[in-house]
Amino acid sequence: MLIVQKYGGTSVGSLERIENVANRVIKARSEGKDLVVVVSAMSGETNKLIEYAHHFTTMPSKREMDILLSSGERVTASLLAIALQAKGYDAIALTGRQAGIVTDSIYTYARIESIDNTKMRQEIRNGKIVIVAGFQGIDALGNVTTLGRGGSDLSAVAIAGALEADACEIYSDVDGIYTTDPRIEPHAKKLDTISYDEMLELSSLGAKVLQNRSVELAKKLGVKLYAKSSFSDNEGTLITQESENMEAVLVSGVVLDKNQSRVTLRGVQDRPGIAAEIFTALAERQIVVDMIIQNVGTDGLTNLGFTVTQSDLEEAKQLMESFKDEFGAMDFDNEVCKVSVVGVGMKSHSGVAATAFTQMAKNGINIQMISTSEIKVSMIIDAKYGELALRELHKVYELDK
Amino acid sequence: MLIVQKYGGTSVGSLERIENVANRVIKARSEGKDLVVVVSAMSGETNKLIEYAHHFTTMPSKREMDILLSSGERVTASLLAIALQAKGYDAIALTGRQAGIVTDSIYTYARIESIDNTKMRQEIRNGKIVIVAGFQGIDALGNVTTLGRGGSDLSAVAIAGALEADACEIYSDVDGIYTTDPRIEPHAKKLDTISYDEMLELSSLGAKVLQNRSVELAKKLGVKLYAKSSFSDNEGTLITQESENMEAVLVSGVVLDKNQSRVTLRGVQDRPGIAAEIFTALAERQIVVDMIIQNVGTDGLTNLGFTVTQSDLEEAKQLMESFKDEFGAMDFDNEVCKVSVVGVGMKSHSGVAATAFTQMAKNGINIQMISTSEIKVSMIIDAKYGELALRELHKVYELDK
Repeated sequence: MLIVQKYGGTSVGSLERIENVANRVIKARSEGKDLVVVVSAMSGETNKLIEYAHHFTTMPSKREMDILLSSGERVTASLLAIALQAKGYDAIALTGRQAGIVTDSIYTYARIESIDNTKMRQEIRNGKIVIVAGFQGIDALGNVTTLGRGGSDLSAVAIAGALEADACEIYSDVDGIYTTDPRIEPHAKKLDTISYDEMLELSSLGAKVLQNRSVELAKKLGVKLYAKSSFSDNEGTLITQESENMEAVLVSGVVLDKNQSRVTLRGVQDRPGIAAEIFTALAERQIVVDMIIQNVGTDGLTNLGFTVTQSDLEEAKQLMESFKDEFGAMDFDNEVCKVSVVGVGMKSHSGVAATAFTQMAKNGINIQMISTSEIKVSMIIDAKYGELALRELHKVYELDK
Repeated sequence: MLIVQKYGGTSVGSLERIENVANRVIKARSEGKDLVVVVSAMSGETNKLIEYAHHFTTMPSKREMDILLSSGERVTASLLAIALQAKGYDAIALTGRQAGIVTDSIYTYARIESIDNTKMRQEIRNGKIVIVAGFQGIDALGNVTTLGRGGSDLSAVAIAGALEADACEIYSDVDGIYTTDPRIEPHAKKLDTISYDEMLELSSLGAKVLQNRSVELAKKLGVKLYAKSSFSDNEGTLITQESENMEAVLVSGVVLDKNQSRVTLRGVQDRPGIAAEIFTALAERQIVVDMIIQNVGTDGLTNLGFTVTQSDLEEAKQLMESFKDEFGAMDFDNEVCKVSVVGVGMKSHSGVAATAFTQMAKNGINIQMISTSEIKVSMIIDAKYGELALRELHKVYELDK
């Protein structure tokens, strides 16, 4: 059995924790598993290096940033290999390049194009525990590249795919995926299983356990993904293909995203192309727009609403000024949040959204915007009701049971 | 004009100092020079990483140590490139691999086998300031290797050779090569020029400005080497081929090495092969023997003396016990030091050694052992007389003039 394990920054955040990881790896090894272990930089290291670069400029060259940042994972990988060797286990550290990871040339946010698994296969055959520096690769010209924040997850999933591993285990300081944020709802329950699609909705909605791109890739490659804690022996959550069993569950989780601002343009000229112009302008400023709502208008006028992250609100406001001939009035609200209900069961069961709206009404919470997908219902509400809404939704779908 | 500059750990020891280096590079650039800049890790970084590894074991695997330690120079190289770009200069950071440095596979002490200068040449042609992470390369199989302590000097000299650079400037916190240690003899003077051979004798005798292997390589490749300070605009010292002018100078420098212990075996059986056996045994234990003195014996017995570093004395003593049937008695002295006089002028002038011995006698200093080469006279004396001997020799050869 071949397992790819990935340990995040907190899990390798000190020498003692690297030793703890070594012991976990040895435990899996003693169960007869072949192992490839992908590691992140020690927590804090990447931010430290970014601060170093920002001492010189706020816009450092991305090519050089990638050489800079990739060093952190190399340190952890070699230290973990040394720790395993010190305990009598045959381990070898590989850089991204040595592990055969070839990416495109989009520095700081590269995509993995291919993995030449020859070297990893050879070392596994030689009985070695293979330790790989995550987050990095090289492009076709030999330039060092990195995969963006959380990129080690992506390395692990891609390697699991390239080696046709039996599973990919992502270790962090959280022991799995919960029905909601346990800091807000103490009755939150850990899920045993969740589908890729649900996980994608949950993580893009603000659950930070797994990097979104890595879940997408796992889905694409059919990699069985486990979210586990490196600080406990709990079971963790399996993220995998949707199964019939899963569809029996209406709702898997409820998420709250407090980093939302609402912009509403009232009385927008309802001519073709206006929405395209506005959202192209926003995209050009790198402003990420989350929800977009446009109602059918009357008298050639319509209302257009969208949400952006709070730090982008000021810039979005200024930008909208340049479109002011196109609409009657605009209003903004920084005091909003988004609560979302996610579940594959929605596909085959009606009434999930209605239950959510009813529960909001019962609690006197006004819903400002609604957006739905096949497996998700999102609502923009007053920020002050965020936690209450989350707890009420958690309760009404019986997620604590 | 193409110049290779190398900045050591102290010169890049903080973000402010990296900025200072950037300014120096820009100054050279504004004089119209093409530049390749080789950098060490920020001072303290390499030791920190070694300590990390030693947390797990005192004998970490050398292959993994090389991945670990090479990260420090990558950080500095990318930061310096970023600093230059921030100031509006076109710079590119290259890792050892990207600079084309191919070594043998002797981890932690690799030798450079070849340099493929294609990439560096191309970037220079593109008008870029090329920044190279020193101390590192890869072997033929793509493993990361490092070149041993002070290896960035070696990187710089090898690159200067491969690019046929006009000069290689080694920057540190010392502004050149002195006639002796200025901390002991305040009248020490900086040398304008010194020959490779003199420099080799001086550095193997304990002057720490330039790494010995890099001077050897500079001699072999005919690279003009400058030792300069990154903290001043002083001229520095040129290390180059011996010239007639140099030979007019009798003595270039005087050095004191306090890390010496003397071992003397008395009444050694004067049979063929005994010295070979003893020194082979020492070498097998990795004990570096510096001076070896054997006098012609009488009655088939001879005295054999040698020196080792102080930390090796205990082990050398124990080892000699196993040879105790071969000699009459042995004595040891940890309280000795070595003073040496170096100068190419000795080749053509007699009397240099005699002057040294006379000056020792005048000061009542007993010489326990003497060893000479073509351009050097070394004496083992009582440790307590070390500084006095150094000052007296400095004076008698008029090195302060």
